[in-house]
Amino acid sequence: MKKANNKVNAAIIIIGNEILSGRTQDVNVVSISKWLNELGVKLEEVRVIPDIESSIVKTINDVRKQFNYVFTTGGIGPTHDDITSRSIAKVFNLSYGYHKEAYKILEKYYKPENFNEGRKKMAKLPEKALLIFNPSSGAPGFIVENVYCLPGVPSILKSMLGGLNSKIKGGKKILSKTVSLMTVESEIAASLEEVQNKFKDVEIGSYPFFRNGKIGVSIVIRSTEKNLILDCYKHIKNFTKKKKINYMQI
Amino acid sequence: MKKANNKVNAAIIIIGNEILSGRTQDVNVVSISKWLNELGVKLEEVRVIPDIESSIVKTINDVRKQFNYVFTTGGIGPTHDDITSRSIAKVFNLSYGYHKEAYKILEKYYKPENFNEGRKKMAKLPEKALLIFNPSSGAPGFIVENVYCLPGVPSILKSMLGGLNSKIKGGKKILSKTVSLMTVESEIAASLEEVQNKFKDVEIGSYPFFRNGKIGVSIVIRSTEKNLILDCYKHIKNFTKKKKINYMQI
Repeated sequence: MKKANNKVNAAIIIIGNEILSGRTQDVNVVSISKWLNELGVKLEEVRVIPDIESSIVKTINDVRKQFNYVFTTGGIGPTHDDITSRSIAKVFNLSYGYHKEAYKILEKYYKPENFNEGRKKMAKLPEKALLIFNPSSGAPGFIVENVYCLPGVPSILKSMLGGLNSKIKGGKKILSKTVSLMTVESEIAASLEEVQNKFKDVEIGSYPFFRNGKIGVSIVIRSTEKNLILDCYKHIKNFTKKKKINYMQI
Repeated sequence: MKKANNKVNAAIIIIGNEILSGRTQDVNVVSISKWLNELGVKLEEVRVIPDIESSIVKTINDVRKQFNYVFTTGGIGPTHDDITSRSIAKVFNLSYGYHKEAYKILEKYYKPENFNEGRKKMAKLPEKALLIFNPSSGAPGFIVENVYCLPGVPSILKSMLGGLNSKIKGGKKILSKTVSLMTVESEIAASLEEVQNKFKDVEIGSYPFFRNGKIGVSIVIRSTEKNLILDCYKHIKNFTKKKKINYMQI
């Protein structure tokens, strides 16, 4: 078993021309990332790549050795541009064909007269893939080694994440605290850098915002250690008090 | 000069822990991608990476040889986590320090009493970088070879794109036509694949949607050749007519 404070990381590979063309706004990264935070898995890279087999194979081979978990989104539907399953089979040198369990699920899900070739295609998976249950629309996702393949439709993807909880062995939960200051970044940059230098194991991010006609800066403190976050926050409170910077209630 | 039908491609590198943590929803990919479509440049990859120098250097070195243009977003502000400029200097083995022209712009933009260290930091760039004019908030972006560094704040980034038009040498404009069908993907998958096989140089995407309580499929046809798109569209019209599939007005 992994030690509780082991760092566990992940990458997301978004497979979809529609994201690259600007037609569709991706929202799956936020869903997966927030879910991973809860499980103590740190998302460390995202790639968006086209629906091209060679790109998928190259990218997956590149990331699967670098990260504990790889999640793909998109390309597991019934149409010609859905080539994720076939590509993943190629990555792992597995045969690609009807997956008995997936076929049974889809056969049950659709009326016999509606179980057409397109729908049957969604049962074509890499040999021996483990299935990811889909409570929304039948067609399962699947797992090969550390690669987890999910659909691209946001509502369906979200509905499938919960069922994966027991399969992900995360580290300590990643905690965060945000404070929103009524100031501009340049006013606090030097003081904030001092705090960051004191707390090497805490991730401090600084993000300007424009909200309801007001400008300000949100400081985000992230760590697996609650005490470190609170200690770091005290130091931020100290310098903002000295500089007479107000906090914004959100 | 490049031939008009030369394929010109690009990658976007999003530098930002806040996107990876799920705190912030990226919207810059859509803005940049749509702008690139107009210029005849095809976005072929996006990566989101953390605010870590070694990650930035490795990623930029990886993509700048693969793509005609690389756009980075984020990390050019005044705080400790803004390390894009320093990292890009490292990529190209250039010195990193005050850039005369950028310093002058910022010196003019701020009142002398407000031109503090944080703001001065935004004038620290790779030596000999070309500047990208920022009409919104003074601090310029910059260009080194084929790498274009832009800010992460969406409204500021958007305001800077237009000024770059003359610097990008694109190919033919990428055109697209979308038709929305009142059907499900599996009903049209086989026919659509036939059309795709006939039109190898056209990109046909199929995207299920749920809109106003209705389900349907949007078919997106993309190409630089208008005639090819229209021809391809005719074939889609033919099979939808045979199948008695209605179109949805959007």
